[in-house]
Amino acid sequence: MAFNFNITHKDTGSRARTGLLKLSHAEVETPAFMPVGTLGAIKAVSPETVWDIGFRLVLSNAYHLYLRPGHELIEHCGGLARFMNWNGAILTDSGGFQAFSLAKLRKISDEGVIFQSHIDGSTHMFTPELSIAVQEALGVDIIMCLDDVRGYPVSESDALEALERTRSWASRTIMAKKKVDPALFSIVQGSMFPSLRKLSAEGLTSLGFDGYAIGGLSVGEPHELMVEIIDVTTPYLPENKPRYLMGVGKPLDILEAAIRGVDLFDCVLPTRNARNANLFTSSGRVNIRNSRYRDDQRPIDFDCGCVLCRNYSRAYLRHLFREKEILGFTLATVHNLSFYYRLMSDIRTAIREDNLNSLIQMHLSRSEEIND
Amino acid sequence: MAFNFNITHKDTGSRARTGLLKLSHAEVETPAFMPVGTLGAIKAVSPETVWDIGFRLVLSNAYHLYLRPGHELIEHCGGLARFMNWNGAILTDSGGFQAFSLAKLRKISDEGVIFQSHIDGSTHMFTPELSIAVQEALGVDIIMCLDDVRGYPVSESDALEALERTRSWASRTIMAKKKVDPALFSIVQGSMFPSLRKLSAEGLTSLGFDGYAIGGLSVGEPHELMVEIIDVTTPYLPENKPRYLMGVGKPLDILEAAIRGVDLFDCVLPTRNARNANLFTSSGRVNIRNSRYRDDQRPIDFDCGCVLCRNYSRAYLRHLFREKEILGFTLATVHNLSFYYRLMSDIRTAIREDNLNSLIQMHLSRSEEIND
Repeated sequence: MAFNFNITHKDTGSRARTGLLKLSHAEVETPAFMPVGTLGAIKAVSPETVWDIGFRLVLSNAYHLYLRPGHELIEHCGGLARFMNWNGAILTDSGGFQAFSLAKLRKISDEGVIFQSHIDGSTHMFTPELSIAVQEALGVDIIMCLDDVRGYPVSESDALEALERTRSWASRTIMAKKKVDPALFSIVQGSMFPSLRKLSAEGLTSLGFDGYAIGGLSVGEPHELMVEIIDVTTPYLPENKPRYLMGVGKPLDILEAAIRGVDLFDCVLPTRNARNANLFTSSGRVNIRNSRYRDDQRPIDFDCGCVLCRNYSRAYLRHLFREKEILGFTLATVHNLSFYYRLMSDIRTAIREDNLNSLIQMHLSRSEEIND
Repeated sequence: MAFNFNITHKDTGSRARTGLLKLSHAEVETPAFMPVGTLGAIKAVSPETVWDIGFRLVLSNAYHLYLRPGHELIEHCGGLARFMNWNGAILTDSGGFQAFSLAKLRKISDEGVIFQSHIDGSTHMFTPELSIAVQEALGVDIIMCLDDVRGYPVSESDALEALERTRSWASRTIMAKKKVDPALFSIVQGSMFPSLRKLSAEGLTSLGFDGYAIGGLSVGEPHELMVEIIDVTTPYLPENKPRYLMGVGKPLDILEAAIRGVDLFDCVLPTRNARNANLFTSSGRVNIRNSRYRDDQRPIDFDCGCVLCRNYSRAYLRHLFREKEILGFTLATVHNLSFYYRLMSDIRTAIREDNLNSLIQMHLSRSEEIND
């Protein structure tokens, strides 16, 4: 089996750790951030660019690719990595979250989740068995078990039902797994109830997975509550397995999770914000549409070595956004992804130097606000 | 003065010629095609990509950049080439055509052209003096004289008025020119009247310019009429100066013009068609949205070595267009520009081998139609 995870260093002052994740198609140093390529493409940039920034593991979505263009088509084209010309590794989400957040109608039973496509309203049913079959057809490196996702806030009894169903589905996913190579991760649920998080984590670890995700966060709860739930969950996850915080998040969220022992992250924030003219910099976020940048010949961020910051002025990027030039979306995306890559690299360095707390203090002292 | 043009070979069987155009910021082998970067950006691709395809001379527009972001701003940022991070040369159109085709209201007098901005309706006046001042501020390699552009069809008396005013403005442009380095081209008008084309060409050549453009074509007239007008115009242009056919065009148009001695071309066709899912290939045009490509694992064009054709299938590109992924626009643009670059390279080779006629016959035998 290609999958392997080794912890390479433990921060002496926290639960943070660095690790090396060996996958079928890449080796990934953790903590790591996965750019989101929902539809088999990281929006506005080429896979070569994502690779050149340094990423080796990206995320895609079983839900979307099942609906369009179809997992059989992608399998016929040699799998998702070949289809999208990505030389690295891929993790796919199971579709549980998308059936909850995107589908027009959703009905959950023990059998699976019935939903209407957000594209054409057609009715489909995702079972744990179908979800893993789709992900195996895509040929990805890491497969997520189908989970029962609820909103926020949710009652304790509903949260309990969801986590028990998620455990049952995870068990069925193990049974349905046909391929040896892909790693299989399950998803801890339990909403904002610490006792349920413990119950969910213990239930899943007793089944035994290659890695464990923390799901059901970043769904509208306050930052402090999210951090608290991460704080009470990671102690119940096996030390020697990768931990993945799904759909999170802002730089500070990632830092707070890393110091509590989380290894993997994904979020649309860097790519989506880029297309909205919102750039991450070492001194806060910049909305490049602001008129203050009209005549500003400086790069977006002097501390950044990306193609945007090396070659273009704020004045030019502002011009591109005003004119809705596609090149503006591309350059801003390259920049934000570079910022996230560097953030993770800084986190890994800080952990190796037993110094992650200082990095967090530095980020806390900065404004997270857009500086206009 | 940096500008220089040398004819390097004359086709023995036609008026076609190859040449070397030396500009302030690049050397360009002719016949050459200029990608269009109306707003200081070639749509959907980076300047590095345009350079890597092989282009060294691109077109931009004084009209657009004067309105937004303003030529003073660009001058302050070090000129257009630096602003847009383009290491090659730039030709700007004067604004005459855009004031005709884009502005909400246009009023022409001997003084200049009064127009309302297509962006905000504000009123502006382009004179020959302002047009060259704008282009000099942009710091480009080739400046076009402001011309009086009319629609098609137009009466002979109107066409005569327009060409006489264009000559008068060209004369004023020479007087207003302050910078030594940029080359100055004037524009032959005369609509579809051969005698007026002769009159216009003779009037302008008597003033003496670095190059001569043929304007007022590709404005709705039949292909055969356009070719006829090119055919009767080039003999009146100096042999040793570059000739530029503005806004043209389709591959066959370019071939028919090159065999009649035209050296430079520009057109939005490769870039605009790309964003509309319409790809040029060696066996005709392809609309990649067509369902026949759903499961097609072949590259767009086996004869093409661009990044799209090397790495991606038709099925994947179709998927990107269906999902409106920006990467699809970018890859299709790279492909179409590569097609045009190769077309011009093939034309130059054919001329050197005294064989351009055969290349035209080959193109005529192909379908120009989209193959669906």
